Amino acid sequence: MPRPDTLPAWQQLDAYRHVVGAGRTPSPQFASGEPGWLQVAAGPLRADFSRHRLDARGLELLCELAEQAGVQTRFARMLRGDVVNPTENRAALHTALRGGGGPVTLDGPDLRAEIDAGLAAQARIAGEIRHGEWKLSTRQTVRSVINLGIGGSDLGPALALEALAAQADGPTSRCVSDLDPRALADALAACDPASTLFIVCSKTFGTLETLTNAARARDWLRGAGLPEAQLHRHFVAVTAAPDRAAAWGVPATQCLAFGEWIGGRYSIWSAVSLIVQIACGPQVLLSLHRGAHAIDDHFAEATPAANLPLLMGLLGVWYRNFLGAQAHAVLPYAWPLRTLPAYLQQLEMESLGKRVDIDGKEVAWETGGVLFGASGSHAQHAFMQLLHQGTALLPADIILFDETAAVEPALNANGSAQARVLHAGGQVDAAPGAHGALPGGQPNTLIRAAALDAETLGALLACYEHKVFAQACVWHINPFDQWGVELGKQVAGELAG
Amino acid sequence: MPRPDTLPAWQQLDAYRHVVGAGRTPSPQFASGEPGWLQVAAGPLRADFSRHRLDARGLELLCELAEQAGVQTRFARMLRGDVVNPTENRAALHTALRGGGGPVTLDGPDLRAEIDAGLAAQARIAGEIRHGEWKLSTRQTVRSVINLGIGGSDLGPALALEALAAQADGPTSRCVSDLDPRALADALAACDPASTLFIVCSKTFGTLETLTNAARARDWLRGAGLPEAQLHRHFVAVTAAPDRAAAWGVPATQCLAFGEWIGGRYSIWSAVSLIVQIACGPQVLLSLHRGAHAIDDHFAEATPAANLPLLMGLLGVWYRNFLGAQAHAVLPYAWPLRTLPAYLQQLEMESLGKRVDIDGKEVAWETGGVLFGASGSHAQHAFMQLLHQGTALLPADIILFDETAAVEPALNANGSAQARVLHAGGQVDAAPGAHGALPGGQPNTLIRAAALDAETLGALLACYEHKVFAQACVWHINPFDQWGVELGKQVAGELAG
Repeated sequence: MPRPDTLPAWQQLDAYRHVVGAGRTPSPQFASGEPGWLQVAAGPLRADFSRHRLDARGLELLCELAEQAGVQTRFARMLRGDVVNPTENRAALHTALRGGGGPVTLDGPDLRAEIDAGLAAQARIAGEIRHGEWKLSTRQTVRSVINLGIGGSDLGPALALEALAAQADGPTSRCVSDLDPRALADALAACDPASTLFIVCSKTFGTLETLTNAARARDWLRGAGLPEAQLHRHFVAVTAAPDRAAAWGVPATQCLAFGEWIGGRYSIWSAVSLIVQIACGPQVLLSLHRGAHAIDDHFAEATPAANLPLLMGLLGVWYRNFLGAQAHAVLPYAWPLRTLPAYLQQLEMESLGKRVDIDGKEVAWETGGVLFGASGSHAQHAFMQLLHQGTALLPADIILFDETAAVEPALNANGSAQARVLHAGGQVDAAPGAHGALPGGQPNTLIRAAALDAETLGALLACYEHKVFAQACVWHINPFDQWGVELGKQVAGELAG
Repeated sequence: MPRPDTLPAWQQLDAYRHVVGAGRTPSPQFASGEPGWLQVAAGPLRADFSRHRLDARGLELLCELAEQAGVQTRFARMLRGDVVNPTENRAALHTALRGGGGPVTLDGPDLRAEIDAGLAAQARIAGEIRHGEWKLSTRQTVRSVINLGIGGSDLGPALALEALAAQADGPTSRCVSDLDPRALADALAACDPASTLFIVCSKTFGTLETLTNAARARDWLRGAGLPEAQLHRHFVAVTAAPDRAAAWGVPATQCLAFGEWIGGRYSIWSAVSLIVQIACGPQVLLSLHRGAHAIDDHFAEATPAANLPLLMGLLGVWYRNFLGAQAHAVLPYAWPLRTLPAYLQQLEMESLGKRVDIDGKEVAWETGGVLFGASGSHAQHAFMQLLHQGTALLPADIILFDETAAVEPALNANGSAQARVLHAGGQVDAAPGAHGALPGGQPNTLIRAAALDAETLGALLACYEHKVFAQACVWHINPFDQWGVELGKQVAGELAG
């Protein structure tokens, strides 16, 4: 595939940006379309893209860019199991885990049987724990579950447990990731060793932070005087290295597999979701997968101008490469989604923080920017001031749920007001003149769904995954490796050693 | 005071940046000083500024910029109570609350008596609650406290409760801010109405989110059948509008004052800290204030090249205006400081997100950027990849505590390794060639303290406050107003009405 700056649409966009205005505020002569002119639905999501620095001509150019960069063609290759992560010589088959993409072959027969066997093993363990059949060393049943993992082995389960807390009917469940011993100590303070189970999630079963916490957890159980011979009953492992887990003390029957073809930041679709299934039951996983699968099909098939994640990605390119934005805000007006920005931070910044292209050549264009955000209600009283009256162009995604209107109408009223004022500006009554003037021109996408349920959460996460994939395609970079993380580990090891 | 772009040092910095290199990586000919060449101590903090895009000449120019912009002169005016917030016609006297700045007159006699009376009233209420003398409607003592506030009335107490959790020996304490009813419901699930007290923090006693949560709290108490006539015993108010609090139902004897001369994002130094004092006792507040006061004196008196917060602010200007950075990361290697970035996000982005200068003229230079971050341990497995191998210049503050080395040496080893690799780069053994190469050149400040205690927390927060003040002075903007927040409220009111 070609460098983006050789594509005709890239060069045309470079001219078009002078028409719309490339700074904090649009050109005086720029007029975006009518309110609501660009609305797109996908699965349970509806997005209003009307408040962007974009008119019909800009939309056309961005869609041409997607075609010239071959975004959907490359996605078809990803779906069928091609090596899309060449620096690690791996496929990226998180879509297959949620049933997307039809038959998938990876060096041989269809992967489906392996995936189904993995889901069955996960359902068996989750079911035993939920139904009180899993006996701990004390012969007690499991009343608390703690997931030990970091990065992708933590962020997905942590987000899903918070987002879907209303559906939780299983044992008390929480996630611990930090190497700081106070993080685990906080969680243990609420647990009884006799009824606590730990899930150790580590693809390599060698992650420093996770193995350190697992050792601390075992010490805590031992300190409570539990029978040593049965201590293994307090641990389940999710790993691609079952031998190392066995050597540590987790028997093979208590291990769930983590395919080499799943990247860490896509592992919520794998057995890393075990704790969510324990907390919320098997239906929750099916719904999560169904929501994501709907977006996979949509991203593969919808035409660019009606393709929700593709438009998100193209706008990411537009603001980053042509209008100079270095950051992007995500603002869910829903308390249970308060850590969505932290989840997306890994997905987007780890995937797109690359300075050499997929062929190993230094890029001559900007790649990933900063993603940040918070619950919208909180953000209005914290950092929104800078979006309204600062000097930086900062696009935002504002996420609203129809169901909220029934319990607290002012929440969505605030979200809609922010979307409108960011774009159209306004004047504060109490401060006439320049200090009270909001210039508008700050672009945003308003994303709506009926309810915050597992299906919607799955769809939202898949949308951002494909947004990131689209940006990586245009930028000609590998979104599936993360060598910068590896060096940190290597050097910390040298310092500690 | 003058526009920054008319200052000689500003113009010299504009030339100097071409010497050091204004992009993601330094010029090949640029060599920063020896490791450790620029170290500064202030109160309990030590900062290593040696890993910046700066040599002795650059340092000299930045210090000249501070003098030409009159940063310390303006700070002296702030300390004595001048109107430094002209759009709201107010002083900004958070320094006086922590004993800084000597005698302070505000339209009359020294404010000290008013401040001391406020502290005494706060200590009395906190003491009664801690010692079981405060009787609720049920004649029970207080076992749970919930702070209801948003923005500055939430972020400070929430941070301090987490940061100082190890010292908490009072009633269980937590903060709720979000308008989403699920936030309060989460907190109430762990409380018994008969033994729960609410602190309603709202400067105007009219903040939608806070008053909505206060009404929900009262409904919850009523729903539990508590005696209506004594319901007010479950509420304390912290407000500048005691009449409105009284009309709502909080008697004057249960109100603490919130001075008009305290900005919301500086209110951790005011009676908004009540919940921290209830949880941790009176000594904690004295220590918090002592730490901040030491930094106030340091910022006022230290020469620019040895002035910790001033250097932080000048580097903020340097990267934002001359080297093109739009964001800044804060990475504490301490789980109890995991929400420090959220606190600083308000402090920095609300203060510096301005597009007109203090005279009401549109600025011709960039002002505030995005601040983001997380626990360093977590960040390494989430977004650090983009700092290491992305295309954007992204300065970072890395915060380490000596005491951590005793309990988990790998935590500080990781923090030090990240600081070194961000600056010096390196090569991943497992990925020879361009994909595994980290270019370095990413600037960072390493901030160290002996222990994470109240004094250190106070010093840290004061450092960032004065960093922000220094940037605002150079940029010739008002860091104490926030009109962009007001318009959101106004428009949401219209939509809801």
